[in-house]
Amino acid sequence: MKDFETPADLTKEDVTVLILSAKKRMGLTWEQIAEAIAMSPVWTHSACVGMNAMPPEKADALVAQLELPAEVADVLVESPTKVWSQTVPTDPCIYRFYEIVGVYGPTLKALIHEKFGDGIMSAIDFDMTVTRVENPKGDRVKVEMSGKYLSYNSW
Amino acid sequence: MKDFETPADLTKEDVTVLILSAKKRMGLTWEQIAEAIAMSPVWTHSACVGMNAMPPEKADALVAQLELPAEVADVLVESPTKVWSQTVPTDPCIYRFYEIVGVYGPTLKALIHEKFGDGIMSAIDFDMTVTRVENPKGDRVKVEMSGKYLSYNSW
Amino acid sequence: MKDFETPADLTKEDVTVLILSAKKRMGLTWEQIAEAIAMSPVWTHSACVGMNAMPPEKADALVAQLELPAEVADVLVESPTKVWSQTVPTDPCIYRFYEIVGVYGPTLKALIHEKFGDGIMSAIDFDMTVTRVENPKGDRVKVEMSGKYLSYNSW
Amino acid sequence: MKDFETPADLTKEDVTVLILSAKKRMGLTWEQIAEAIAMSPVWTHSACVGMNAMPPEKADALVAQLELPAEVADVLVESPTKVWSQTVPTDPCIYRFYEIVGVYGPTLKALIHEKFGDGIMSAIDFDMTVTRVENPKGDRVKVEMSGKYLSYNSW
Amino acid sequence: MKDFETPADLTKEDVTVLILSAKKRMGLTWEQIAEAIAMSPVWTHSACVGMNAMPPEKADALVAQLELPAEVADVLVESPTKVWSQTVPTDPCIYRFYEIVGVYGPTLKALIHEKFGDGIMSAIDFDMTVTRVENPKGDRVKVEMSGKYLSYNSW
Amino acid sequence: MKDFETPADLTKEDVTVLILSAKKRMGLTWEQIAEAIAMSPVWTHSACVGMNAMPPEKADALVAQLELPAEVADVLVESPTKVWSQTVPTDPCIYRFYEIVGVYGPTLKALIHEKFGDGIMSAIDFDMTVTRVENPKGDRVKVEMSGKYLSYNSW
Amino acid sequence: MKDFETPADLTKEDVTVLILSAKKRMGLTWEQIAEAIAMSPVWTHSACVGMNAMPPEKADALVAQLELPAEVADVLVESPTKVWSQTVPTDPCIYRFYEIVGVYGPTLKALIHEKFGDGIMSAIDFDMTVTRVENPKGDRVKVEMSGKYLSYNSW
Amino acid sequence: MKDFETPADLTKEDVTVLILSAKKRMGLTWEQIAEAIAMSPVWTHSACVGMNAMPPEKADALVAQLELPAEVADVLVESPTKVWSQTVPTDPCIYRFYEIVGVYGPTLKALIHEKFGDGIMSAIDFDMTVTRVENPKGDRVKVEMSGKYLSYNSW
Amino acid sequence: MKDFETPADLTKEDVTVLILSAKKRMGLTWEQIAEAIAMSPVWTHSACVGMNAMPPEKADALVAQLELPAEVADVLVESPTKVWSQTVPTDPCIYRFYEIVGVYGPTLKALIHEKFGDGIMSAIDFDMTVTRVENPKGDRVKVEMSGKYLSYNSW
Amino acid sequence: MKDFETPADLTKEDVTVLILSAKKRMGLTWEQIAEAIAMSPVWTHSACVGMNAMPPEKADALVAQLELPAEVADVLVESPTKVWSQTVPTDPCIYRFYEIVGVYGPTLKALIHEKFGDGIMSAIDFDMTVTRVENPKGDRVKVEMSGKYLSYNSW
Repeated sequence: MKDFETPADLTKEDVTVLILSAKKRMGLTWEQIAEAIAMSPVWTHSACVGMNAMPPEKADALVAQLELPAEVADVLVESPTKVWSQTVPTDPCIYRFYEIVGVYGPTLKALIHEKFGDGIMSAIDFDMTVTRVENPKGDRVKVEMSGKYLSYNSW
Repeated sequence: MKDFETPADLTKEDVTVLILSAKKRMGLTWEQIAEAIAMSPVWTHSACVGMNAMPPEKADALVAQLELPAEVADVLVESPTKVWSQTVPTDPCIYRFYEIVGVYGPTLKALIHEKFGDGIMSAIDFDMTVTRVENPKGDRVKVEMSGKYLSYNSW
Repeated sequence: MKDFETPADLTKEDVTVLILSAKKRMGLTWEQIAEAIAMSPVWTHSACVGMNAMPPEKADALVAQLELPAEVADVLVESPTKVWSQTVPTDPCIYRFYEIVGVYGPTLKALIHEKFGDGIMSAIDFDMTVTRVENPKGDRVKVEMSGKYLSYNSW
Repeated sequence: MKDFETPADLTKEDVTVLILSAKKRMGLTWEQIAEAIAMSPVWTHSACVGMNAMPPEKADALVAQLELPAEVADVLVESPTKVWSQTVPTDPCIYRFYEIVGVYGPTLKALIHEKFGDGIMSAIDFDMTVTRVENPKGDRVKVEMSGKYLSYNSW
Repeated sequence: MKDFETPADLTKEDVTVLILSAKKRMGLTWEQIAEAIAMSPVWTHSACVGMNAMPPEKADALVAQLELPAEVADVLVESPTKVWSQTVPTDPCIYRFYEIVGVYGPTLKALIHEKFGDGIMSAIDFDMTVTRVENPKGDRVKVEMSGKYLSYNSW
Repeated sequence: MKDFETPADLTKEDVTVLILSAKKRMGLTWEQIAEAIAMSPVWTHSACVGMNAMPPEKADALVAQLELPAEVADVLVESPTKVWSQTVPTDPCIYRFYEIVGVYGPTLKALIHEKFGDGIMSAIDFDMTVTRVENPKGDRVKVEMSGKYLSYNSW
Repeated sequence: MKDFETPADLTKEDVTVLILSAKKRMGLTWEQIAEAIAMSPVWTHSACVGMNAMPPEKADALVAQLELPAEVADVLVESPTKVWSQTVPTDPCIYRFYEIVGVYGPTLKALIHEKFGDGIMSAIDFDMTVTRVENPKGDRVKVEMSGKYLSYNSW
Repeated sequence: MKDFETPADLTKEDVTVLILSAKKRMGLTWEQIAEAIAMSPVWTHSACVGMNAMPPEKADALVAQLELPAEVADVLVESPTKVWSQTVPTDPCIYRFYEIVGVYGPTLKALIHEKFGDGIMSAIDFDMTVTRVENPKGDRVKVEMSGKYLSYNSW
Repeated sequence: MKDFETPADLTKEDVTVLILSAKKRMGLTWEQIAEAIAMSPVWTHSACVGMNAMPPEKADALVAQLELPAEVADVLVESPTKVWSQTVPTDPCIYRFYEIVGVYGPTLKALIHEKFGDGIMSAIDFDMTVTRVENPKGDRVKVEMSGKYLSYNSW
Repeated sequence: MKDFETPADLTKEDVTVLILSAKKRMGLTWEQIAEAIAMSPVWTHSACVGMNAMPPEKADALVAQLELPAEVADVLVESPTKVWSQTVPTDPCIYRFYEIVGVYGPTLKALIHEKFGDGIMSAIDFDMTVTRVENPKGDRVKVEMSGKYLSYNSW
């Protein structure tokens, strides 16, 4: 089927490889890439690895900054299909967050219900930051999540 | 085997039922219970549902506040076995956090590595808060996690 | 642990058994029960089997209609933990809906993106109806779902 | 084995790639493609991604509209093998429908039995539409499914 | 919760136990039970173990034949929730049928498509028989399934 | 490792592709192919897709009929390793048979035990046919399976 | 449902408990129990733990030897439903056999095909022994399995 | 990465393909190959398909017999990583052994404990044979396993 | 079946509950219990929670020390069936060891092969200790495992 | 996408292949490689197979020792994503460690809690050695793990 291949076949995975390659070549950090397109590092990384869609002007800015082919921008603006293949993540850095959901999930649920009523925190109208907090006993990772409260409907 | 049953058989699950029962009867919130024992609501709830161990003085304070049998305190101070039976949680309020780990896990990992080096955020030397943030477009749930950065060893 | 049992231990499962029992004894349909509390049949059934929380006045109305103990209303207003134990449902009537999600999931996604942009249909701010549509070739089941469109955030 | 390859090896996956490529190049929407072959957008998308078979005249119309090779039509009319690899879909837009089946599955079953008797809604003699419903509190996604009622046999 | 228990709590599982108990006590075969209610053995067994619903007159006939309490008939006419807990059955007698589906599934699909078009054999408008066929090399089990052909819809 | 490749590397999968390709090119049905080699369509399809081994004379007849390379016959006579990758098949046409095993498995077991004793129907000394049965209410798919009864050993 | 309970409710699990209890009380080995009913230890143990059915005279002999209630014999002659709950056994003594199947499964298959043709070893017309073989380097467990060769059918 | 490829990249899988290819070309049986290297057929097949490591002199003998490249011997002596991808094997010839472990696992365990004490049969210090036993009612497959008894340690 | 219950029905689980109960009542540590029976703490705990069998004299010593009923000793000497229900353990303290096996498993394998040859470390002829090692940067947990090297057999 | 490929695409997997290839070509052991970079064999192997990141000077030393391309060092210093695909490892040498975690996991937990309090052994601030211990009854594998004790936080 190689004969039918067109530039339109450029996938999200291809684009991620191109971005990582350019980032390494140029010696940039995610913080710098994010700053250059005036977005947060969390969102920028997520969109670069194909887990979020970019508004066209952000995609263009990224392509310009990283000197990538123009069709990369077309792919960056497409709605991604968010797929993860490990039901339980094995990498320790990611697993710890899975563990937190397992241990504290019922607690998060109970406190959201207590503070808001019967509903949930949106994972769509959502933002997140990661910061480094200095601490004499060892610096700490601070993760702040904020999502719109959505109330269950009765009808 | 009922004949051998002794007060020592009181389990973490039993204690949770007793606490929930007293909380309902007394009309208390988790915030109020937490305040009475001078701890945070997240940690207090988690210890009450058997996912964390209480220092003895906190266990005694809780037992006093909720007018529970004295042996409940003994159980509250025991190290829990943290078990969750759903690999993928089904409750939407908890699932959204699982989804966030799935979507943003690689992003959290990349930014932790960028800001700290090769390591992880501890889920043991860890704390968390849940707050309600007013917002004209709809109030938001804010979840703040903080865990000590742990660096991988080379040896 | 039976000694500690209090009326507060009445669970969502107990309440479902009580409701089904009364429904059978009184010879009522879900449509009639829903009408009596002025809500839709889908939502009413869902709340009665412990998958949705009832506003207090609806819970009271249901308890009155079905002549149930007063503490049932307290349980009906509690936020449920939505749990299903079969990842893939086996009952053919439910499986067919799972199959529809498997076959048409990517199609639903593509058309939502085309009509709205990068986002999803909420399953929280959501309602649904089931109706019987007469048809000379065999009557048809009509299921109508409506959920608020939620747009992904960029930040 | 490349030596034995013939045009007959063109697969459903290849055809999907060709269609998506042409759609992008021509700047068409699914609505426009569907209109051009006088079918609904849901069915048209589903057949284009290999989840339904096209009647020959529809396949020819699609091939003409998108200027595709003639053998594409042969593949479009073949009965597909409907495969999905994620037992629980991870993409949030699709997961929400899975969640609806989990939460409301027993409710759909109870109401179908109440309105029709012991049977199911067919997922084969089935159709579906997706529409955008304007709403001052935020537009809503409306999904309408209709399937023939099938009664269980006694013999 | 025992206090709330009413006769309405008689479940499909209870009824199966009662039927098996009576069958054993009376020394009946499934063939004889089926004959007494003028239905096939396959359907009769299936309804008795809670996998199919009985029309009221059949339920009454069964209750009379097996001298069961009258409320058993009410349960027999209810629509069952068809649940099996083993995704892959372990009992060799049942596993062999699972194996046949695994080995010959694609063959059944290909021949149904060849003989009928794009569609399936219904498992709802369906019947089945099991017979013993004498054979000098060893008697054979003959299983005959018949299901209505359902054609996929285009819309 | 391409350098070591020899004609001996022709696999069952390769042979299936070749057969499907030739069948399409020649416009044959499975019924016609089966007739040409004087075997049943079920067995013929199964052997062609690599789920059964062909006796040499049947393999030669097939190769002649479909004008395939001679080494194809060598592969057709090899004992296949029967592998299916979906524990629960997703294609609706195949799933319905899985569902039948789930719903009627215990019934098949009970009736085989009643008619034969403690044993099973062989899936090895086994044959099957698929036929179209005309019916004014809609034609029906008839599947007939026949397997040798095997009695459990006591020793 | 306790009211409906009859002696007919004695299950295979109950019978196993009774046998183990009597075996312990009488200080018998499986070898001695097997000898008393003139069967092999493997088959005897298997029938006693509910994995095989006993011919009536063997069941009576066992009941006599172990001084069990008469209705135990009725249960021992029933065809069991062979269920194991661990897809991968965890007990090391059983796991090693699972491992042998994993490591040597393709080897057993290849040699059976080489020695017999396309077919399998029956697990139904099957017997097995376990013996202790003295060896100066450490005694060895010898397991001998024998099953009838079954040839695949062509039709 | 093709540029870095060296002869050292020859894998166990490659070697298996080469051996099967030579075996077919030369028309040898496993029995003959085993005899030529003076080992048993079970072990020889197992080592040839990458599930056991060969002593150097056996590897050299095999390479000579099958006229394979010299570097094949280097790979044959390497310790294999024993991987099987199907938790439950689907091929009927292998599944039957899995079934035997499921049905008779607890029996094997009980008899090993009775004859030896608390311990297991080793699957490492282990050997196995497969033989054909003539039988007027149908020839039988005989599988003999022998493993060193290992006693659990107390410390 | 309660009527048939005898002291012989005392299970390993019952015994664990009795031991934990006595340990709590007497205020003993595992170290103290182990010392009293002159065994290591790891082995003693493991045998007390039903994962190892005790030699009779150790069982008697334990029963005497903890003032338990005499029949407890009979159960402690029985060979346990080692079952764990979580394929992936969720408790963080246990999960970390699972993670170590996941991360370092191939490394352990490579070094065992390098130091010993093709074989494994026995988990049967095995012992283990846990000690606390003081360290100014934070005390460390030291786990030492020792298992007999077992070499794969060639035959 | 081959056109976009750059040296930056060199992956951890590629690097592992290069290292294994060089190790074989040069006839080195892991012990020798580790010594040459002045690190332990466990850590060295783990970093070489992509499960740990190397400090730059160690990466350079390795590249020099094994005469690898310079860009290999860049990859060796990157933080790896630790992935293992087998939830339950099948290779016997690795499985035995999984088994030890299953059997002794609760014991390790109990003793860590007894010696340290409510907390865990870190798998991040962690080191491990493998040694061969001579023993007249058969040499033994000794595995020593040491991880920092981490205490659960109360807040």
